[in-house]
Amino acid sequence: MKVETMLKELSGLKTDLFGKDFLLTWENSTDNLKAVMLVAEIMQELHKVKKPFKIFDSGLGIAIFRDNSTRTRFSYASAVNALGLALSELDEVKSQIAHGETVRETAAMISFLTEAIGIRDDMYPGEGHSYMVEVADAVTESYREGVLAQRPTLVNLQCDLDHPTQSLADLLKLKDYFGGLDNLKGKKIAMSWAYSPSYGKPLSVPQGVINLMTRFGMEVVLAHPEGYDLLPETLDTASKFALESGGSFRITHDMKDAFAGADVVYPKSWAPMAVMQERTRLLRGGDKEGLKSLEQQCLAQNASHMDWECTEEMMALTKDGNALYEHCLPADISGVSCKQGEVAASVFDRYRLHTYQEAGYKPFVIASMIFNSKIADPASKLLSFLQGVKE
Amino acid sequence: MKVETMLKELSGLKTDLFGKDFLLTWENSTDNLKAVMLVAEIMQELHKVKKPFKIFDSGLGIAIFRDNSTRTRFSYASAVNALGLALSELDEVKSQIAHGETVRETAAMISFLTEAIGIRDDMYPGEGHSYMVEVADAVTESYREGVLAQRPTLVNLQCDLDHPTQSLADLLKLKDYFGGLDNLKGKKIAMSWAYSPSYGKPLSVPQGVINLMTRFGMEVVLAHPEGYDLLPETLDTASKFALESGGSFRITHDMKDAFAGADVVYPKSWAPMAVMQERTRLLRGGDKEGLKSLEQQCLAQNASHMDWECTEEMMALTKDGNALYEHCLPADISGVSCKQGEVAASVFDRYRLHTYQEAGYKPFVIASMIFNSKIADPASKLLSFLQGVKE
Amino acid sequence: MKVETMLKELSGLKTDLFGKDFLLTWENSTDNLKAVMLVAEIMQELHKVKKPFKIFDSGLGIAIFRDNSTRTRFSYASAVNALGLALSELDEVKSQIAHGETVRETAAMISFLTEAIGIRDDMYPGEGHSYMVEVADAVTESYREGVLAQRPTLVNLQCDLDHPTQSLADLLKLKDYFGGLDNLKGKKIAMSWAYSPSYGKPLSVPQGVINLMTRFGMEVVLAHPEGYDLLPETLDTASKFALESGGSFRITHDMKDAFAGADVVYPKSWAPMAVMQERTRLLRGGDKEGLKSLEQQCLAQNASHMDWECTEEMMALTKDGNALYEHCLPADISGVSCKQGEVAASVFDRYRLHTYQEAGYKPFVIASMIFNSKIADPASKLLSFLQGVKE
Repeated sequence: MKVETMLKELSGLKTDLFGKDFLLTWENSTDNLKAVMLVAEIMQELHKVKKPFKIFDSGLGIAIFRDNSTRTRFSYASAVNALGLALSELDEVKSQIAHGETVRETAAMISFLTEAIGIRDDMYPGEGHSYMVEVADAVTESYREGVLAQRPTLVNLQCDLDHPTQSLADLLKLKDYFGGLDNLKGKKIAMSWAYSPSYGKPLSVPQGVINLMTRFGMEVVLAHPEGYDLLPETLDTASKFALESGGSFRITHDMKDAFAGADVVYPKSWAPMAVMQERTRLLRGGDKEGLKSLEQQCLAQNASHMDWECTEEMMALTKDGNALYEHCLPADISGVSCKQGEVAASVFDRYRLHTYQEAGYKPFVIASMIFNSKIADPASKLLSFLQGVKE
Repeated sequence: MKVETMLKELSGLKTDLFGKDFLLTWENSTDNLKAVMLVAEIMQELHKVKKPFKIFDSGLGIAIFRDNSTRTRFSYASAVNALGLALSELDEVKSQIAHGETVRETAAMISFLTEAIGIRDDMYPGEGHSYMVEVADAVTESYREGVLAQRPTLVNLQCDLDHPTQSLADLLKLKDYFGGLDNLKGKKIAMSWAYSPSYGKPLSVPQGVINLMTRFGMEVVLAHPEGYDLLPETLDTASKFALESGGSFRITHDMKDAFAGADVVYPKSWAPMAVMQERTRLLRGGDKEGLKSLEQQCLAQNASHMDWECTEEMMALTKDGNALYEHCLPADISGVSCKQGEVAASVFDRYRLHTYQEAGYKPFVIASMIFNSKIADPASKLLSFLQGVKE
Repeated sequence: MKVETMLKELSGLKTDLFGKDFLLTWENSTDNLKAVMLVAEIMQELHKVKKPFKIFDSGLGIAIFRDNSTRTRFSYASAVNALGLALSELDEVKSQIAHGETVRETAAMISFLTEAIGIRDDMYPGEGHSYMVEVADAVTESYREGVLAQRPTLVNLQCDLDHPTQSLADLLKLKDYFGGLDNLKGKKIAMSWAYSPSYGKPLSVPQGVINLMTRFGMEVVLAHPEGYDLLPETLDTASKFALESGGSFRITHDMKDAFAGADVVYPKSWAPMAVMQERTRLLRGGDKEGLKSLEQQCLAQNASHMDWECTEEMMALTKDGNALYEHCLPADISGVSCKQGEVAASVFDRYRLHTYQEAGYKPFVIASMIFNSKIADPASKLLSFLQGVKE
């Protein structure tokens, strides 16, 4: 049976997820990533046959959102609920970048009966990940010093560097579509910038994708117009991963080059790194005029690349003309959600249900990250759920 | 025993609620409506003796509110909690009327582990019900195509056409007060417009009441000043239902005529349909000046009907001077919540606890709608709860 | 074993908490207070060994916040979750002081399946406690008249008079730190005003502290500059309690006098009572200009007492130079959260983890108040949880 095969594979992995936070895929071994995916897939199968996988009798699962989010909010809500936790949300003022004493104290104050903390903080380069590390250090100290009876597990719901719950959902879709991780070796994926009439989209999705897909032997091509670079350190790790896995990683400034013969395309807008960094500076200084003019300048810069659109002509360049289209949603669909955007309506519509399935892995990926941190032997625990043994 | 009699009656009904949404009472057979009420009453009895009726181990119950609501919010929260679901709220910007791709995608994105979706969207004639149908179609597609492992049940928490959780609570109060549905035959109910110093109250309560009470043989009189018409299609169905049930339905522009000899009075303000339709047009066009002037015009129009108040003099006209007073709450009480309003303080106070009991059915009606959609044999399931058999 | 000793002590107390709300410590017998603390401590021990203490299968725990609060919000969320309830929040407009019909009706409308209501309403002298009494009377009436099948228990999460969940957490910290309530006899605590660059902090913390610590034989000294008096009735009860318990209570306008030889110091800012009362009057009258000028005047008044700071020099005056520092958090820390505030950074940092532990009692105190109200024999019930007997 499918689940039993997955359980067997899971048992064979060497992981060190127990007791750990999940902040960046590139801090984790490949076996860790495989385990997170397998547990997520098994949970999805359990859900299909209405077998619960609760591991908590009570406790809070806290979500800290420093950016608006509907989808991630509901994914996280579903994940903690399925594990037996009650969701509590801590909404911070969006522009407020709290550090130091306040972060340390708040982290303890909200954690007395808390098992998991999911954080989304993706708007400011240099801020999101470091905030998560601050929270992690704070709960570690409070747990060590006996203030907390348990240490909540942190899950990165998107930071300035990575978006691991998204990229692992993207990868799970590829795993399912191509019939296994092994089949991804040598497959070409075009992670491409695309035009959008909006401004300030974070870099974490492309950075996450190039650092995850390179680990499984894929031929990863990052495409963007000049000036839309990602953070340099994320390029270095992607190159290293490609080398290790027998895949490849390269950058092009030609969308057609990226799409040519691709098995998978991921056309998505993001802001130029320099703009995002300038934006952080202006926000910190409270310079509203500067922010306004930066937005205008950035939109004008975007507008000179309106030909970076995933059209039918572009899709025709891909492998047999039918590469799989991926997106983290919502996409800017030309003539639907905007006048001209990332993708032609006919292309999006053909792959629409595929993108829904891609998103559908997310609640299970989040639940899996918490589960792997809390349960020393995930395979045995999941087997007991499969056998319908109630706690 | 009372519950056992109700269970027996429930077993004898021919319903097709299983797997269905509950959007409009008039789409449902009389047996369906009887089943929703019986299950609600049995749940209320189980609640009194502290017997839980949870049918879910986990899962989300989502509430989408496109209008402010405290009471419906808590009724829905209680209902999904009693069934074993965790509440998640999707608050949309009030004036935003999203359609098409956004609705379809969002419906899927929030539903991966969701069992129920309650929607309140009552502000714009022509919008609320059609939005619910869009959401219903979206989850149907996603379930059919394998994106969702289960199809969430939709519950109408008030739309532009109907307010079924309210009208069924109103009817349950009448059933209890008069000792059974059969005793409602030939009883006269005055569903009457009443003056309020506010503006823009939806039409769904009176439309819901005239279409529900006519199905149980009541003499339904709709009273309002000229110009305060309800949507024509809802008048047609009310007439049809009255004919079928042996009751009657007529419209009068004289409040006294409606109250004369009435067994039940339901005096409540609503906005003229034409105003509500114009409001939708102005909102869509973003015409703030137009909206302001429409409000002034509507308030002035209301003010010429300040004599439409449920006073002691009006109550004296009713059957033996003591018709049952019903209201969906909150009422505009003269000298209490406003200078002059829908009802005299002494009248309201005499029936205050009755209106609380009326409202008290609502959580159970909502829970019943979800229960009937999810459980193939509600009577057997409820019997197991009564016998205290835990899952 | 520790828990068994506590259970035995709990069994010996004569309490009348069953079926009651918890609004003010001074309405409760000393045995009631001891029981609330013991149950909280036992729950904390159960939590440490991962033994659940759920007493509800379902139901709502409602929080009504009429003032912003992150910490109390999460404490309450944790407490109701641990007992098996789902949190629902009723957020009222902060400046709105609703009374009468609206309060009575809303209390019933939100309570049909509700087991607990926590209220925070601390901003307006003469308002918070009386609002809670109104809500209590409303649910009592609705329960008596059969509108509600159960009467929700009210918990005061901070009013204008008292902050019992905070003061009991403060006392539990002292109980633990000094090795038992008996060891508090004769210990000196300085409840002292301290400078803060903010405005309008409520009086309920100092009022709560002087009325609780005097009941356990402590030497309680209240220190504040002239003009920063507490409500007179709270001074009278503190004097009475001191007399009864063999402790003492006095007021000084000299911070050094209060700190000299103190075993515990609690330096914390509050607004002058006269300012808070004037503020209520201005808010009711909607006098924005008046409020602005009052704020200026109050900040200026504060600024003339900037020497009221808990510095190292002040700490050196205390018993052996190392009195325990208590605070309800967040503190205004000089050079950290403000330029100059209530406490020097080095002092705060030395006691930081102690203040976290102090706060850590709060979720259990709240849970204990609800538990004691709902369970007739708390000791037996807790014993069954200790023995791992599941419901």
